Amino acid sequence: MGWGIVDHQGQRLALVACGCIETQPAGPVSERLARIYQELRALLAAHQPQEMAVEELFFHRNTTTAFHVGQARGVALLAAAHAGMPVAEYTPMQVKQAVVGYGKAEKRQVQEMVRVLLGLSERPRPDDTADALAVAITHAHASAYRDRVVRPGPAPGTGGEVR
Amino acid sequence: MGWGIVDHQGQRLALVACGCIETQPAGPVSERLARIYQELRALLAAHQPQEMAVEELFFHRNTTTAFHVGQARGVALLAAAHAGMPVAEYTPMQVKQAVVGYGKAEKRQVQEMVRVLLGLSERPRPDDTADALAVAITHAHASAYRDRVVRPGPAPGTGGEVR
Ligand SMILES: [Mg+2]
Repeated sequence: MGWGIVDHQGQRLALVACGCIETQPAGPVSERLARIYQELRALLAAHQPQEMAVEELFFHRNTTTAFHVGQARGVALLAAAHAGMPVAEYTPMQVKQAVVGYGKAEKRQVQEMVRVLLGLSERPRPDDTADALAVAITHAHASAYRDRVVRPGPAPGTGGEVR
Repeated sequence: MGWGIVDHQGQRLALVACGCIETQPAGPVSERLARIYQELRALLAAHQPQEMAVEELFFHRNTTTAFHVGQARGVALLAAAHAGMPVAEYTPMQVKQAVVGYGKAEKRQVQEMVRVLLGLSERPRPDDTADALAVAITHAHASAYRDRVVRPGPAPGTGGEVR
């Protein structure tokens, strides 16, 4: 499960931390979910992001994948609720629109723009991490827009994202 | 989400408690998942079951349903992990085989046998609750078999089930 935390001052973005939670495929599912929950709670406690965003996922074929992704995502949403954080959801098209400016952008274009927007020398790896940062950037943009509309002038803020 | 807790002394079964956790469809998903988690933790604390069993679900068509059921189930498995409980999984066919003695039994037959095996005057309602008790009975039978093989003679035990 990829995750990324970004800081934003108005439109200016900075990478705070990112990574990917890996679990042992061999262990019991409940233990694997407990590990994801534990790591997320630790990340939230360490970085204290103000909000969380996740991608709204659509599955066209594989119900087994949908089921397993759903299990892990349920735990991520629970971690947010237990940390008292609101969670926003964005569709893949919204993420592409926000990051690349084009709702049908290619995956590679999104990852390249994540690199550029965060001023990194290389694309974040693995792909899940880059995807997570793209959702965080989307949420930061939405928040910056909200801030501009609601209270003009730059407002400090941090967006955490998990997918 | 239906749940049921049964007590078993060897093959003898007794209903301890059962019910169905309902959440407000209007609220944020993270809050709904937090409520499911909280209720399950409270049930586990109140009744102290020794083990949990869930149904292995298969989805043939609806990936959205699979995704949402997955989210709720992830939280249930996490509640078990946080309570230090092992979780067993049974396929629908295993449940039918254990409860009715026939892997392709109708849903109604399963619910009727749940009533008979637990000595109830009526079928548990709603259906999700009856389904949950069927899984608990399946797990109790499997445990009774295990107990007989490993250490002869009746052994006290409790099986909790959530689906
Ligand atoms: Mg049912």
